[in-house]
Amino acid sequence: MFAEIITIGDEILIGQIIDSNSAFIGKELNKIGVDVYQITSISDDKQHILTALDEAKKRADIVIITGGLGPTKDDVTKHTICEYFDDTLVQNEKVLKHIEALFAKYISTPISDINRQQSLVPSKSTVLMNLYGTAPGMWIESENTVFISMPGVPYEMKGLMKNEVLPRLQKRFDRPYIIHKTVLTYGLGESAIAERIEDWEDSLPSFIKLAYLPNLGKVRLRLSARGNDKNLLEETLENRIEELHHIIGDIIIGYEEDETIEKRIGNLLVRNGETLSVAESCTGGKLAQSFTANAGASKYFKGGVVTYATQSKIDILNIEADIIDTYSVTSFEVAEAMALAVKEKFKSDYGVSTTGNAGPDKGDGNVEAGTVFIAIATPKRVFSKKYEFGKGRERVIGKSMNKALELLLEDLKEISKIV
Amino acid sequence: MFAEIITIGDEILIGQIIDSNSAFIGKELNKIGVDVYQITSISDDKQHILTALDEAKKRADIVIITGGLGPTKDDVTKHTICEYFDDTLVQNEKVLKHIEALFAKYISTPISDINRQQSLVPSKSTVLMNLYGTAPGMWIESENTVFISMPGVPYEMKGLMKNEVLPRLQKRFDRPYIIHKTVLTYGLGESAIAERIEDWEDSLPSFIKLAYLPNLGKVRLRLSARGNDKNLLEETLENRIEELHHIIGDIIIGYEEDETIEKRIGNLLVRNGETLSVAESCTGGKLAQSFTANAGASKYFKGGVVTYATQSKIDILNIEADIIDTYSVTSFEVAEAMALAVKEKFKSDYGVSTTGNAGPDKGDGNVEAGTVFIAIATPKRVFSKKYEFGKGRERVIGKSMNKALELLLEDLKEISKIV
Repeated sequence: MFAEIITIGDEILIGQIIDSNSAFIGKELNKIGVDVYQITSISDDKQHILTALDEAKKRADIVIITGGLGPTKDDVTKHTICEYFDDTLVQNEKVLKHIEALFAKYISTPISDINRQQSLVPSKSTVLMNLYGTAPGMWIESENTVFISMPGVPYEMKGLMKNEVLPRLQKRFDRPYIIHKTVLTYGLGESAIAERIEDWEDSLPSFIKLAYLPNLGKVRLRLSARGNDKNLLEETLENRIEELHHIIGDIIIGYEEDETIEKRIGNLLVRNGETLSVAESCTGGKLAQSFTANAGASKYFKGGVVTYATQSKIDILNIEADIIDTYSVTSFEVAEAMALAVKEKFKSDYGVSTTGNAGPDKGDGNVEAGTVFIAIATPKRVFSKKYEFGKGRERVIGKSMNKALELLLEDLKEISKIV
Repeated sequence: MFAEIITIGDEILIGQIIDSNSAFIGKELNKIGVDVYQITSISDDKQHILTALDEAKKRADIVIITGGLGPTKDDVTKHTICEYFDDTLVQNEKVLKHIEALFAKYISTPISDINRQQSLVPSKSTVLMNLYGTAPGMWIESENTVFISMPGVPYEMKGLMKNEVLPRLQKRFDRPYIIHKTVLTYGLGESAIAERIEDWEDSLPSFIKLAYLPNLGKVRLRLSARGNDKNLLEETLENRIEELHHIIGDIIIGYEEDETIEKRIGNLLVRNGETLSVAESCTGGKLAQSFTANAGASKYFKGGVVTYATQSKIDILNIEADIIDTYSVTSFEVAEAMALAVKEKFKSDYGVSTTGNAGPDKGDGNVEAGTVFIAIATPKRVFSKKYEFGKGRERVIGKSMNKALELLLEDLKEISKIV
């Protein structure tokens, strides 16, 4: 059984926004065993939408549409759906009350007719209540194809998917089992891993698919097993991952689908009753953010400093000016001094620091763009490493963060083995 | 003249990665006056690729393909293109040398045959050198349609677009002028702005298109003028934006396409010879990152502290425990104390602070999820505001950051008026 996703909006085609909705929808459908055959992004144009609906209907059992529902979109999708299904718009009182309530609670500007018109829906559609916004979702069935329309605002669409669309799809269609296992690795590139696990990969049964997901120095391996015998699927996956662990266990971080290095670090720290703080220069807050983005970070993350200017390293972290003058602000010595200083200031068990040049030009430290020093201070020792991350400011910052996380995890894993 | 973008990769359809490439390509094509008619994401399947190429060819003069070129992809795109154009693969020495050089310089793992095979290209293709990776780009013309294939790795694709694809397309096709002007606003929602500028919008000539781009409290307006009389376009745009300024000048931040609140703040601070530091609790480093993500931030951004744990607010910023006990850690009083303290510690002219509960649960401060206090300390005064950002941790953090930036900009604009 196939689904297709149609995202509507000129802003996607001219690249003003990135279509992150399709990825979310694809991932969620995939989890309930629905294959996405194609994702099509088209303009806010009625004829183009009609054509896309027709073509998708030929190929798919489920057609999910996002976008074109905002007040400034003139609700083009809603009107086009009406035309496509030869339907008319009727006012939905429940939606209208919801819109009025939302404005009363969250929106400072007064409610307008444009907003009220969003409570008009096609008479043949089942309304999917949008808890987070004013544009309702719609579900229409036609000749065994289910059409679902949702607003394009990501958090509104996500709410609709979880609360309305997925439960209804699971009720509506009888699906084979699909089970995913994700293996997060670190330290090795895609092709290096591919070579190490080549034989294992070739020996996988046809009902198990392997996918690689590389991202700035981290590679995620995803195994998807599909079939009607749930026990067989689970057993086979378990055995295969056991095999994989024997081959590349040294570079495996974890096995949860939403596993991240920072979460793994958090879990290890919480288990050990230890805490962390960070001192950032070139990563400029991104390292702290990687931890604080997760709920519950306060259990182990005490905080950090972004000592961006050289002087602030002296003023805030009390790094001795001599060290900076002697070794330069981007050096092993300064990185280690920063890690030790932040660990002490925040009274944490671990301290992590970054100092380097994210580019594009030479920084205070007068090192090449892409040169970064990372230091880890642990309860037992402090150590630092130097990296050349090449070009691209955003990329250098991202790689610096990932590498800092890797080094910290390495050390925590050592400890855990001992414990 | 139309272009179509085809992104290849199962990982896109199952939502393992977000297709950010299409947005970049669409934006760049749009700038040189090429309309993207459709973006299609398909699987790593030969037949699906062949069908997509055929359909795109019917509708477009330019077909841009990304993905399916990685070593672990078995270079499916390359082999399919060979089949589509009835061509064969030949080794390209220049590409081979480049691959070997890249491995020697950046990659710790030894070069493999899989990597060397990436220097095989279709004989009818013009090779587009990929400076940042091992998979080359390819350009093939057939019956007046240009087919361009690039690897899916974003920074490799971006390099190829800028260095090879865009210059070649501009040479190959004679295009009408297209001129964009972007107006970044803040503080008002999409529909509220739409109502304020309704008459102005209705009066726009047909050769000017207006697009709205809302994002967590900020709305970007983009005017696109297209035609053959460059002067007329520029003049009309200028006049129209002048008109717009009279209508909503109070909420306009700037007029550059890549304008952001943080850049605008940076420019104002540099112009005034002033500096900034930030004290973050609930935004957890995101505010600092918004500044340090831009090259040259060191000219005005001294740094910041992420005092995530309550105790760290006392230890690092020396906030009096009494204030926290009396008013709670999430309060106007603590927010203002944080802003003043960080300003003093970093010896900066401005200090910005955030403290609140990003959710999902109640935090130390025992306020509802979504409740956030933001304070701004300036050379003259300190002030703070309270917000209710509703649900969604990521969203609350993002809105907190944007609102903090807005408040700071407000104050800087006041100053600038006086100056």
